[in-house]
Amino acid sequence: MDQPNVWKRLRALDADVTRLGHIAALLEWDQETYLPEAAVEERAAQIALIVGLHHDRIVAPEWGELFAELDNGAEVGADGDEVRAAFLREARKRWTKKTKVPRELVEDIARESSLAQAAWAAARRNDDFSSFAPHLEKIVGLERAYAEAVAPDADPYDTLLDEYEPGATGDEIASVFDELGRGLSSLLGRIRSGREPDSGFLDRSYPVAEQDAFGRSVQEFMGYDERRGRLDLSAHPFTTTLGPDDVRVTTRYDEDNVLSGLFSNIHEAGHGLYEQGMGDELRASLLADGASLGIHESQSRFWENFVGRSRAFWDRWFPDFQCRFTENLKGVDAAGFFKAVNRVRPSLIRVDADEVTYSFHIIIRFRLERDLIHGRLAVGDLPEAWRTAYRDLLGITPPNDATGALQDVHWSVGLFGYFPTYALGNLYAAQFTQVMEQDLGPLDERIRNGDAGSILAWLRTHIHAYGRVYPPGELCRRVTGGDLDPRCFLEYLELKYADVYEWG
Amino acid sequence: MDQPNVWKRLRALDADVTRLGHIAALLEWDQETYLPEAAVEERAAQIALIVGLHHDRIVAPEWGELFAELDNGAEVGADGDEVRAAFLREARKRWTKKTKVPRELVEDIARESSLAQAAWAAARRNDDFSSFAPHLEKIVGLERAYAEAVAPDADPYDTLLDEYEPGATGDEIASVFDELGRGLSSLLGRIRSGREPDSGFLDRSYPVAEQDAFGRSVQEFMGYDERRGRLDLSAHPFTTTLGPDDVRVTTRYDEDNVLSGLFSNIHEAGHGLYEQGMGDELRASLLADGASLGIHESQSRFWENFVGRSRAFWDRWFPDFQCRFTENLKGVDAAGFFKAVNRVRPSLIRVDADEVTYSFHIIIRFRLERDLIHGRLAVGDLPEAWRTAYRDLLGITPPNDATGALQDVHWSVGLFGYFPTYALGNLYAAQFTQVMEQDLGPLDERIRNGDAGSILAWLRTHIHAYGRVYPPGELCRRVTGGDLDPRCFLEYLELKYADVYEWG
Repeated sequence: MDQPNVWKRLRALDADVTRLGHIAALLEWDQETYLPEAAVEERAAQIALIVGLHHDRIVAPEWGELFAELDNGAEVGADGDEVRAAFLREARKRWTKKTKVPRELVEDIARESSLAQAAWAAARRNDDFSSFAPHLEKIVGLERAYAEAVAPDADPYDTLLDEYEPGATGDEIASVFDELGRGLSSLLGRIRSGREPDSGFLDRSYPVAEQDAFGRSVQEFMGYDERRGRLDLSAHPFTTTLGPDDVRVTTRYDEDNVLSGLFSNIHEAGHGLYEQGMGDELRASLLADGASLGIHESQSRFWENFVGRSRAFWDRWFPDFQCRFTENLKGVDAAGFFKAVNRVRPSLIRVDADEVTYSFHIIIRFRLERDLIHGRLAVGDLPEAWRTAYRDLLGITPPNDATGALQDVHWSVGLFGYFPTYALGNLYAAQFTQVMEQDLGPLDERIRNGDAGSILAWLRTHIHAYGRVYPPGELCRRVTGGDLDPRCFLEYLELKYADVYEWG
Repeated sequence: MDQPNVWKRLRALDADVTRLGHIAALLEWDQETYLPEAAVEERAAQIALIVGLHHDRIVAPEWGELFAELDNGAEVGADGDEVRAAFLREARKRWTKKTKVPRELVEDIARESSLAQAAWAAARRNDDFSSFAPHLEKIVGLERAYAEAVAPDADPYDTLLDEYEPGATGDEIASVFDELGRGLSSLLGRIRSGREPDSGFLDRSYPVAEQDAFGRSVQEFMGYDERRGRLDLSAHPFTTTLGPDDVRVTTRYDEDNVLSGLFSNIHEAGHGLYEQGMGDELRASLLADGASLGIHESQSRFWENFVGRSRAFWDRWFPDFQCRFTENLKGVDAAGFFKAVNRVRPSLIRVDADEVTYSFHIIIRFRLERDLIHGRLAVGDLPEAWRTAYRDLLGITPPNDATGALQDVHWSVGLFGYFPTYALGNLYAAQFTQVMEQDLGPLDERIRNGDAGSILAWLRTHIHAYGRVYPPGELCRRVTGGDLDPRCFLEYLELKYADVYEWG
């Protein structure tokens, strides 16, 4: 084969893989938004068919032939071309990993996850951990087998983590989380003795149509491009990419919880902006994706917390918000609203957590799941370990397993190594923000002036445009000059909560 | 291979083909309803990828191996089992035909159609037939090549027709259309000397939200199952099947043309009921489809015209309709509304035509497209032939080609042999209705009593449940005892228009 053809064929193979992934994403998006209720079962069969075709293309022998050509010296112009080099790195990594996993194991995981997810839903409904335990044991076993197949000599937890946060290790995250946990505990102590903001007006009823109109205005302000995406409703908010110019977000509105929908709108649009910001030369390739889930989460959390929960944001937006809900917000001002949306209350439920306590939920899950994979914790002992951890870190104890060890769907579907990325998002966001402010000056001024455009442009230039060209650790070093570090995030929280809890 | 396995493998192969077809349909449905505007180009690439995979499965060599097993006497239980026998008939026919067509020709047709469609749209916009003519010449040539590849000894028009109306021939349709045309001309003469109903109130503005609410009520009355489908908006109304329990319809509403949306709702729900009524044993197979486009159209036209444009329907529904649009409909009664929705006005545009003149538009297109395929009419002479035909049959002459030979998209995308099925739908509907009334008594009584359920049950039992088990000619004979015959339809029109135009 002549050499330019190697590159062309690699790109063509990958374009098909990417497109099949987008087609699977459409089947899933439709399932969560518009699928008729009777069609759920058949949709699962359709998704399984596409996922199978997607997998076939990922492990196609042609990849191996082309890599052999490269090994034999075929020139594909990757010298000095970062994008080509990254493409080859990621393509080789994917192919090598996926071809190592026996098809039987892939099918076992798919089947057992499906059963375990159903068992988990029933167990949570009935608060009956024991009915879920045998399923979770199977899943843990399969995940260890998966890690063993991919990298027999590596720490199995690191192998699983690498799926979501390439290059990260459990040891590194444990040490970062230790420091983070200590800092948060100290902060939480001070908050507890601070003055809790008044937030009774949040418990009123906020009409959904106005929530939607406001949420869309904010997404537009952020720069989310409706020509290349759309907002729909679903039971659980998510962002999905169906093509380079088709990045859709969803939300849900609750009349009795106005913040839930609004911050979902902002959070998902943050993810959406990352996907909409991928560089043109990455289009329809495996590089047009987040560098990692942690980096992806840094973008959603940046907009949700660093922007959407900032004093400057509400200085800018509160008048509009108040006009839409005049009855509810009589006598409230921007400063009061800012404080209310930032009230801190240790709770049992991760998804309801504030910025301070959120990371505790993640630290707990990380420690428990790592111990499960390492065999240091038995599935049967999980509920008690969960209770102990919540008591120790948050000072509250789940009264049952439904709000304890059965709380999240993740483990039932085999997502081990996924939880840490939620907390990494906060840390990366804080580190990126610090550099952004060195470049642009105070964020608050820009937000107060309605200038989200320069903020988005900075994110585009420094993060979005690169997609998966750099692994997350390298991206972090390129942007910030340093490694993952919890101190930035802790400093940011210190400053913010001194204001909210008035000890400043 | 042991014999039960042959059947199982045939079914599994076909299930994948069917599912890939449904997945392509979702990509297309989404494109017409919710796709972000910037994503159109990439969506075309996604559809091309799935259509290619679909085609690969249709022509997979495994089909040939399995058919060889059958030829060598493998037992698959088709003796005395009509469904299995039909499955084998249809599967063999599809495989044999599709493997005869060179892949290059398939790709040529796809590419040229895409170019020709764009050229057609521009030509119609600019009323410039000459810019479209070279494209149409190419398409006609490719369609002839396709027919030649499939059946070198057959009449090429019959081969094309067979795609949409299996077993029908051009000669047969020509003779049916001759008789139909004569009958309609005579009827049109009498209508012209009859008393045109007052219909000025239709030219008022009807708020879209109320149109939608009314249209949904009527679809529910018909028995269209929202649990197994949904209604959305699109530029052109259509029905599409995304799975055995996922049959979606679309409509469009025009504030200034209240009938357009309403009859789209009814028409598409008629198609939808057929698809929702396929027998359980046909699920996710190639038999879960209309017997032909003509039979499919008989179901939509039955509900649209025989039900929705009937006196009994408006006796039942006018009070509800009037309540929604009181200002517009002061002083109008059900009888007057019935007459107004049935006013006859020869016009140049097919999709705006009434029940009497509609078939003329089809007869004209059938004659012209057959002559094009037979080489008796040159593409360059098409505009003049079109004008002559309209003058002769409808007494009106298109002032330009945009409303003449450039009116419809069909030929630009290679749909030759498709138009006749629109008119066949009317004829089949009339023949089926006659038998239905023998079984159930007068339809009018059932409609007036709000009993659409027994009508739908009759259609399910006699037509829907069979899907593609019987070819259309055989289905017609089984249901009606006779062949396709325009007289039923003409008698139906005679009776109806004697009432509308008051010569009874």
